[in-house]
Amino acid sequence: MSDEILTHSDQPALWTGRYYNEGVDSQVFDKLKEECGVFGVFNHTEASALAYFGLHALQHRGEESSGICTTDGEQFYVHRGMGLVKEVFDNDKILSLKGSTAIGHVRYSTAGASKLQNAQPLVFRFRGGDLAIATNGNLVNADELRRELEEAGSIFQTTSDTEVLIHLIARSKHHDPRLAVKEALQRVVGGFAFLILINDTLFVAQDSNGLRPLMIGTLDGGYVFASETCAFETVGAAYMRDVQPGELLIFDKDGMTEDRFAEMTRRSLCAMEFIYFSRPDSDVDNINLHMARKRMGMRLAMESFVDADVVTGVPDSSISAAIGFAEQTGIPYEIGLIKNRYTGRTFIQPSQELRERGVKMKLSAVRKVVEGKRVVMIDDSIVRGTTSLRIVNMLREAGAKEVHVRISSPPYMNPCFYGIDTPSREELIASSKTVEEIRQAIQADSLHFLSKQGLIEAIGRSAGEYNRGMCLGCFDNDYPTPVEDAEQAGCGC
Amino acid sequence: MSDEILTHSDQPALWTGRYYNEGVDSQVFDKLKEECGVFGVFNHTEASALAYFGLHALQHRGEESSGICTTDGEQFYVHRGMGLVKEVFDNDKILSLKGSTAIGHVRYSTAGASKLQNAQPLVFRFRGGDLAIATNGNLVNADELRRELEEAGSIFQTTSDTEVLIHLIARSKHHDPRLAVKEALQRVVGGFAFLILINDTLFVAQDSNGLRPLMIGTLDGGYVFASETCAFETVGAAYMRDVQPGELLIFDKDGMTEDRFAEMTRRSLCAMEFIYFSRPDSDVDNINLHMARKRMGMRLAMESFVDADVVTGVPDSSISAAIGFAEQTGIPYEIGLIKNRYTGRTFIQPSQELRERGVKMKLSAVRKVVEGKRVVMIDDSIVRGTTSLRIVNMLREAGAKEVHVRISSPPYMNPCFYGIDTPSREELIASSKTVEEIRQAIQADSLHFLSKQGLIEAIGRSAGEYNRGMCLGCFDNDYPTPVEDAEQAGCGC
Amino acid sequence: MSDEILTHSDQPALWTGRYYNEGVDSQVFDKLKEECGVFGVFNHTEASALAYFGLHALQHRGEESSGICTTDGEQFYVHRGMGLVKEVFDNDKILSLKGSTAIGHVRYSTAGASKLQNAQPLVFRFRGGDLAIATNGNLVNADELRRELEEAGSIFQTTSDTEVLIHLIARSKHHDPRLAVKEALQRVVGGFAFLILINDTLFVAQDSNGLRPLMIGTLDGGYVFASETCAFETVGAAYMRDVQPGELLIFDKDGMTEDRFAEMTRRSLCAMEFIYFSRPDSDVDNINLHMARKRMGMRLAMESFVDADVVTGVPDSSISAAIGFAEQTGIPYEIGLIKNRYTGRTFIQPSQELRERGVKMKLSAVRKVVEGKRVVMIDDSIVRGTTSLRIVNMLREAGAKEVHVRISSPPYMNPCFYGIDTPSREELIASSKTVEEIRQAIQADSLHFLSKQGLIEAIGRSAGEYNRGMCLGCFDNDYPTPVEDAEQAGCGC
Amino acid sequence: MSDEILTHSDQPALWTGRYYNEGVDSQVFDKLKEECGVFGVFNHTEASALAYFGLHALQHRGEESSGICTTDGEQFYVHRGMGLVKEVFDNDKILSLKGSTAIGHVRYSTAGASKLQNAQPLVFRFRGGDLAIATNGNLVNADELRRELEEAGSIFQTTSDTEVLIHLIARSKHHDPRLAVKEALQRVVGGFAFLILINDTLFVAQDSNGLRPLMIGTLDGGYVFASETCAFETVGAAYMRDVQPGELLIFDKDGMTEDRFAEMTRRSLCAMEFIYFSRPDSDVDNINLHMARKRMGMRLAMESFVDADVVTGVPDSSISAAIGFAEQTGIPYEIGLIKNRYTGRTFIQPSQELRERGVKMKLSAVRKVVEGKRVVMIDDSIVRGTTSLRIVNMLREAGAKEVHVRISSPPYMNPCFYGIDTPSREELIASSKTVEEIRQAIQADSLHFLSKQGLIEAIGRSAGEYNRGMCLGCFDNDYPTPVEDAEQAGCGC
Repeated sequence: MSDEILTHSDQPALWTGRYYNEGVDSQVFDKLKEECGVFGVFNHTEASALAYFGLHALQHRGEESSGICTTDGEQFYVHRGMGLVKEVFDNDKILSLKGSTAIGHVRYSTAGASKLQNAQPLVFRFRGGDLAIATNGNLVNADELRRELEEAGSIFQTTSDTEVLIHLIARSKHHDPRLAVKEALQRVVGGFAFLILINDTLFVAQDSNGLRPLMIGTLDGGYVFASETCAFETVGAAYMRDVQPGELLIFDKDGMTEDRFAEMTRRSLCAMEFIYFSRPDSDVDNINLHMARKRMGMRLAMESFVDADVVTGVPDSSISAAIGFAEQTGIPYEIGLIKNRYTGRTFIQPSQELRERGVKMKLSAVRKVVEGKRVVMIDDSIVRGTTSLRIVNMLREAGAKEVHVRISSPPYMNPCFYGIDTPSREELIASSKTVEEIRQAIQADSLHFLSKQGLIEAIGRSAGEYNRGMCLGCFDNDYPTPVEDAEQAGCGC
Repeated sequence: MSDEILTHSDQPALWTGRYYNEGVDSQVFDKLKEECGVFGVFNHTEASALAYFGLHALQHRGEESSGICTTDGEQFYVHRGMGLVKEVFDNDKILSLKGSTAIGHVRYSTAGASKLQNAQPLVFRFRGGDLAIATNGNLVNADELRRELEEAGSIFQTTSDTEVLIHLIARSKHHDPRLAVKEALQRVVGGFAFLILINDTLFVAQDSNGLRPLMIGTLDGGYVFASETCAFETVGAAYMRDVQPGELLIFDKDGMTEDRFAEMTRRSLCAMEFIYFSRPDSDVDNINLHMARKRMGMRLAMESFVDADVVTGVPDSSISAAIGFAEQTGIPYEIGLIKNRYTGRTFIQPSQELRERGVKMKLSAVRKVVEGKRVVMIDDSIVRGTTSLRIVNMLREAGAKEVHVRISSPPYMNPCFYGIDTPSREELIASSKTVEEIRQAIQADSLHFLSKQGLIEAIGRSAGEYNRGMCLGCFDNDYPTPVEDAEQAGCGC
Repeated sequence: MSDEILTHSDQPALWTGRYYNEGVDSQVFDKLKEECGVFGVFNHTEASALAYFGLHALQHRGEESSGICTTDGEQFYVHRGMGLVKEVFDNDKILSLKGSTAIGHVRYSTAGASKLQNAQPLVFRFRGGDLAIATNGNLVNADELRRELEEAGSIFQTTSDTEVLIHLIARSKHHDPRLAVKEALQRVVGGFAFLILINDTLFVAQDSNGLRPLMIGTLDGGYVFASETCAFETVGAAYMRDVQPGELLIFDKDGMTEDRFAEMTRRSLCAMEFIYFSRPDSDVDNINLHMARKRMGMRLAMESFVDADVVTGVPDSSISAAIGFAEQTGIPYEIGLIKNRYTGRTFIQPSQELRERGVKMKLSAVRKVVEGKRVVMIDDSIVRGTTSLRIVNMLREAGAKEVHVRISSPPYMNPCFYGIDTPSREELIASSKTVEEIRQAIQADSLHFLSKQGLIEAIGRSAGEYNRGMCLGCFDNDYPTPVEDAEQAGCGC
Repeated sequence: MSDEILTHSDQPALWTGRYYNEGVDSQVFDKLKEECGVFGVFNHTEASALAYFGLHALQHRGEESSGICTTDGEQFYVHRGMGLVKEVFDNDKILSLKGSTAIGHVRYSTAGASKLQNAQPLVFRFRGGDLAIATNGNLVNADELRRELEEAGSIFQTTSDTEVLIHLIARSKHHDPRLAVKEALQRVVGGFAFLILINDTLFVAQDSNGLRPLMIGTLDGGYVFASETCAFETVGAAYMRDVQPGELLIFDKDGMTEDRFAEMTRRSLCAMEFIYFSRPDSDVDNINLHMARKRMGMRLAMESFVDADVVTGVPDSSISAAIGFAEQTGIPYEIGLIKNRYTGRTFIQPSQELRERGVKMKLSAVRKVVEGKRVVMIDDSIVRGTTSLRIVNMLREAGAKEVHVRISSPPYMNPCFYGIDTPSREELIASSKTVEEIRQAIQADSLHFLSKQGLIEAIGRSAGEYNRGMCLGCFDNDYPTPVEDAEQAGCGC
């Protein structure tokens, strides 16, 4: 329906998807929540369709809401909704999003603040015209800036951190958008990748530590931007380069202008992108993630070999590491755990006695594979420990004789302040328990984590930089920015 | 679904109704668009249900969108949607709107700017807390104030005039809401009735000319507020008094505080409320509108008698005047025109050749009643003249021998700047044509308008004030405020 | 969506409307339920659009569900849904219903059996091809026939009486549809108007007593069929004649063939069509119903004059009679009761204490009109008496000094078996109470009913036939067919 | 909404899901369509919830529509809809399906006949009371029986084969349901698994060749029935046994009665269940399918070794065979092809030039894994050959040096008549081309199919029976029943 495509003046806030109750998922599985994904297009006649395909490829980075804003140089066209990309958009909606420039967003799901108003791209009208923004990441000084702006009379439309940047731009002493954007970027601290559309100019920026990934590709003479390279593959674009920490790229009728709002400080790309978030077919720094994860599994095998009959991985994210472990050890890799591919979210909130069935609806052990066997179960991380306990039990109930848990990353002990939805420090099992205590908690026969050094070397980025240019804050509590303000507040990429 | 009930922080912008294409209506009938209606409740345990019933009674004042915001002293509960009150709300939604204070709104339909974001009550969060507002009317200096505020860095969320007032409050030098509201009201010019909720305090204000109606009633020890008394009748409340021009009433835990933000200037209540907008069972200044319209019909008969067989009125708004005309002349009143009561809006956009059928779907002549007869057709006003022409033709096609048109108000020659959606001056047939030229244009056998003096006396307000305290600007081009700024912009109550 | 337009083989049972809870309506107002309405088109290029407009004009005859089935000679196109015509259909749906032949239906609402499966036109596939049917009326021997057919192995798809006819056709010894339809019609007893489409042939039939109205009109060389002439006016067709009792008209490529399945027995058109059901702008036997009702009001004034200040009618159905009463007596007609034109149905089920407000939401007295006055209140009938009591009280609470009730028909004492949803005999107040007892029950100052003779003469059909060719069974218990079987079962047109 | 839960008399045909356009999927990928899945529960207090979980586990067998019918001994409760189980049902709907007996169904998607009316369980009312049925399979003599029944006057409600059985029951000379069901089963020929509910009795039957799988399990003293054992694992039930060919099991208040309607003829379980349809964690005849497929991959490696750098499988169905091939040959298994787990169906129908992007949206090659490598690509079957060609090209575009295709089943040359939606014989590439011609058509460097003997031995059922008790008709054109009638008609499980 045409009513669901909005020009800017109509504001971008129609509800098009369904409300999802995570039900079993959020209660039972305590995986880290994926952060957001962004995708942009500059100068391509099929901008909205490319954005659709690109966001679809990034769907694993955020399943809660999806949105695209385009411009044809005359006006903005926006459509956003709760739900998956394929649920929020249909052919008519894509066709109604006119123009050759697009920015798009998929947003992750948080327990309490799921709402359309925060769905991105956020779109505003200010003295300088129309402005839209799509963000991946989190600001650590957002609350402080927000208080300051509200005191001065600003009225916020969302609870998103990102809106702070917009008000800074609207109130800047500079009326030239390039200067105003730069000034605003200099006031915010955190880990972020921004795609900002002001009238017909596209601004692309990454924080000065390069915490959140953002890549540039080319297609048919235009540019595309994505959180992961898998989206380039999907749309048929060629990878060009990574956006650099502190960089501000400006795209307008004169093409690309390369500028900076800040010098690069310590380069610190999030290590969890390598371990868990990014798709196995994506590359970061030209490193393919399936291969990197397979190397983590091999390294893990070297660090913590155990004699067993079967290696299995927790689907989907740990399959590569499991294959690596199997290849290194010669123990056969089998499908010992199976994930129902129809289950993302569910409406059903089962009664207490159906809870266990609800869990099996998502993931179940394959009896004939594990019965009477010594099983090595590979997972990428342990957050609260509840999931691991559950899976170990599932394997035992299916007849596994021994269950040896191997984790392809170090113990996850500290919260993230840069856009990953982590539980509080107290809830992280590794922050208070030793490895042996965790093993007991999850009732495994043995438990080993990949060492920090093993992780770094398995990933294999070029040496020389601190931590090889990665943020390992969640493992070593060493963050590249001050984080005091953020410890109070939640995260909202 | 619970997702459609929002606490304030979730913002009030879910789409719950359907998109209406006015289709035939807007193309064929050129009635003035109704302005908005407001309804408020203070200190009643069933505030949201009362607001529902009250808004339903005011539905004729705005069919586009409906909304209610309540507070229980802790937080705001908001639900708004496109569509009629009964379409936007259901029992669950009403029950979820908690608290004993409520403000509600029905909004009229304009061609281009139909959008949920403008649906009221508008809800904001600012440094002082939560703020909601429901308005009937229009500001004449909104554009100027908006430019000024945007220049200073404010970001607007809607295209509604009303938002100007909110930013003035948010930026006021006063942090005490009472002083901030007063200061903001002193800067806006126009015709308006405001219901403003700031946290748990309700502010009620009317412009200093009293252009738009606003009444107070009492019920079970609490207060209710409405644009028309028919809403009091529906909820069982007792009429107390009209809000006075320039008055600012404040309701909080100390009950009602009577204050003013301005002295009353020339009292100028909109005459079209008497002629057309308000329901016939409503009273203004203790004058019942059915009776007033019947007197207009009688006076019209005295001013422009014509010998005929049948008197008929254009339903629904001209029935009272037609009955008055019939009673005065002794010519029988008959149902010569019938309106299909199921037709408000329609999805159907008929092909060109089905257009005429589409018209008859809404309104048709009753052949057996008018065939071979001399018909007096009473209407309340002529705007562009297209409707009148169409109805005259309809009567002739049904066999009427003569069609004498009698209009129960003076020629409508000038646009309204205070909240009524009028076409531009050029489109108003009476602004450029004489009565005789209009008669020819609508192909009537004769045509008469009620005189301005006749109108004033038929309404019968107490003498003494200028124009008996009414704004007749649309008839006499004599407006109670400066209107230059507004002539540029459209109207958006 | 295209999925909502079905070819026959897909069966016609998509849910497109909303579920209506009659709420207040059904609890408070006990008007007789309208029966159904049918509309057909043969040989017109815009068959589906005409059916849409025609059904819209007949909407008052059934608000529960709407449906249209068309054929282009190749296949059937069907769309049905719960809700009003304008809710069930949109432009796309109309356009997707291809072909020059159409049958359409609006269905009334019953308490217990509201369901899409019974929405008409019912569509079937049988050995002879495709078959669709739209019915107004009721069979008195349906249960008996159904039992017989089920015993022989037939499986019913609906609970509608009408399906009995279809199974009789499907099992007929005749394979020629003309003979099969005729044979089937000869087995059913009751009051009915049928539009039956078998492949590309349209059959039109009326029961042998002519109980339910059905008229033929012509338009652009094709034919239209309707339960009321107002639908002809809406689509621009010319009235041709009434279908005759016992007649079977067949339309195919050879045009119209006039046949009969039975001889006319006692002609007995439902008197309630004149009194209440049909729209005032419809004609029956060339008698306009507004004029007939006005004559009923005049005759009522002659039979039961009372000195009073004001005459008012219960909107909408009693306005004509009220005007007649006023004209005859010289007492002014006023709008003393007002019906909210937005209220058809409502989602809201108010709590007990809000019940009274819910009632006023639908209908309210106009205080300024009735205060201190002696009021004559005209209504068309009294069913259970609860509505009358409520309205009398409403008028008194609004200040009426006296309330004199005048009913423009005789006491309604007996149920209808021919398609009108009447309460059981015990619930009909007039079946057990005298006029004086009813007066006390409804707390009126006086009460009079129009006499049967007065009614017959006011309607003014040509004399000579028994009861002037009308069924007055609900007043005099004299039915034109046996009714024993039907007394057991409910009614389902 | 309660309106979507229907008791039987309301009929089971509400539209609750969305219409899916398979778009890219059906045009690009020519996998065989999954057949249907059934799940039943007898004597368990949470019958509807168990059915929900069980059907969810069987979702891969049919994504088009889902439905559950329960009974509490008093009446039937039915809910069906287009879409996935999790889309069609929510908590409220599950709770409204009362009783301790349930039958459920998931239905596969066919191009032309996607419609709710055919969604199962089908529910009927006949002389014997209420009847519901859920089927997996296809009748080969359905058309002939349908013609016979229609000729005798039966009216069909659906186009489903299954309805034939119902009419046979309704017209049986036996009024005792046990005898009527038996008689009806004796007249139908084909491959089927039936769950039939008549009032409070559940009938479970399998065709006399045992073509379609059906298993019985036990849970908390009650029984469950499923097309695959993975559903038992999900609900926590214990596998009891397979239903036997020709068996008719009857469940009522006396518990289970074991009967037969026919002697077992040649046992012929569908081999495609082993190769492709069933989930890898399901067991058939106590053979786990992941392990069976891994053995097929190993056997394939032995039959057709090729020197290469990487083995990859087409996800998801060929992963097990690929792992087997890798393990047998020592060539590393890698994720060379990746399937987007969010893509099941899509609304988007891309323009011609976006087609290729649409394909990559579903499946893409992982450049870093295959670049410069000799790749062995394992798939389970080749139907039309278009998919294989596309994937080979995808791998080459991603840089694969050589692509060797290995298929873990023999050439698929003949259509299935027992419930699998196969293209016509002409469209099956293997029916007219040699292996070498197919290799050229799909542009592979080499191509090998698993031999029939290799397949049979890899599956490993006990020897002795013809084809080890499997139907290999699609490979060897040797069907266990006559199939002439079915060759004319399509398949509709």
